[in-house]
Amino acid sequence: MSKEITIVRKVLEANDRLAEELKNKFRVKKILCLNLMSSPGAGKTTLLERTLTDLKDEFKMAVIEGDLQTDNDAQRVAATGAQAVQINTEGGCHLDSGMVLDALKSIDTEGLDILFVENVGNLVCPAEFDVGEDYKVTLLSVAEGDDKPEKYPFMFHISSVMLLNKTDLLPYVDFDMKKATGHAKKLNADIEIFPISARTGENMEDWYKWLREKRAAKL
Amino acid sequence: MSKEITIVRKVLEANDRLAEELKNKFRVKKILCLNLMSSPGAGKTTLLERTLTDLKDEFKMAVIEGDLQTDNDAQRVAATGAQAVQINTEGGCHLDSGMVLDALKSIDTEGLDILFVENVGNLVCPAEFDVGEDYKVTLLSVAEGDDKPEKYPFMFHISSVMLLNKTDLLPYVDFDMKKATGHAKKLNADIEIFPISARTGENMEDWYKWLREKRAAKL
Repeated sequence: MSKEITIVRKVLEANDRLAEELKNKFRVKKILCLNLMSSPGAGKTTLLERTLTDLKDEFKMAVIEGDLQTDNDAQRVAATGAQAVQINTEGGCHLDSGMVLDALKSIDTEGLDILFVENVGNLVCPAEFDVGEDYKVTLLSVAEGDDKPEKYPFMFHISSVMLLNKTDLLPYVDFDMKKATGHAKKLNADIEIFPISARTGENMEDWYKWLREKRAAKL
Repeated sequence: MSKEITIVRKVLEANDRLAEELKNKFRVKKILCLNLMSSPGAGKTTLLERTLTDLKDEFKMAVIEGDLQTDNDAQRVAATGAQAVQINTEGGCHLDSGMVLDALKSIDTEGLDILFVENVGNLVCPAEFDVGEDYKVTLLSVAEGDDKPEKYPFMFHISSVMLLNKTDLLPYVDFDMKKATGHAKKLNADIEIFPISARTGENMEDWYKWLREKRAAKL
């Protein structure tokens, strides 16, 4: 199996080189790039729909959408008026920097403030592959259960933000907020945690405040 | 990249050989083996807790639990009185037949009727790796949204059963049952679909009926 491990390492190294290229582009153009990750159905696209709509007069934003198949999410996001490019991984379980570099060719980056990269819905593999982002932002739906940070530790260890989404479902599920946030903080003392409902709009202002701060810091 | 593809093919071929070995074991011992898959937090462990409790006088059952880290799920399952063995993949995104063969050494298969393999929570990668199962059973929580079969097509294409779990949340989420089942049937005309709530017990009898039939067919 050592041959396999060598290959995996080479793939990761090649990705890191391209991620560096992306980071340089974003630095020069002063674009804040965020890598959005989560399990399938945690609400990444709904978060984007609301964010793009609420902040459309404040920032110029674009989205790179990653999916195994279909361009459903790119269509949902484009309906807000933002630029949206779809990457289909054809079964691949994560995005990588090569895919993002390629998708970037279809985006007008002139004056762009924020680029969201919506990764494939998967709480494991995307954690391994940088896509040139400034920050990794991971959503956890409260319907998934409070044990997920403990059970998928690497994702929460490397994320700068955990958005605890679907708080409108809290009355109907068994979710101990203290347990979830406690585990996440144990994995990563610096993680910022915002309980929100992208569907109802509850507490979205906390997320927008963070976005504004991080965007300002790039200037 | 062709070297990488060759390696992946070799890994899959090696897995298929071990899966065949497992299948033979299960055939000789007349054990029904089911590979349970889903996104993180769709309710696989809760399904097992209730199934193992409700059918404990009817069948001798055991569970192989797959997780990145922790043995939380094996402990939950063992509390029902069933045999439970934990596999920690240390970050690996799916189980494979080698891991299951190894875990099987710790299980008393004498008189065993049903072996459940609870895969890593991931709607992408586990679909590629057989673990010697008779059937793949995929859970979809209604909180994840009705678009998931369309967006993660391979998983639903190769599954014999889709358990639409957490039906107790239906009044509080936007989930079109017809859309979800329609997409699943388009990917796989033979897929059997059971809407259930493993938490409340609603409609679990449909799932048990299927289990009894498939177990009887192995004798």
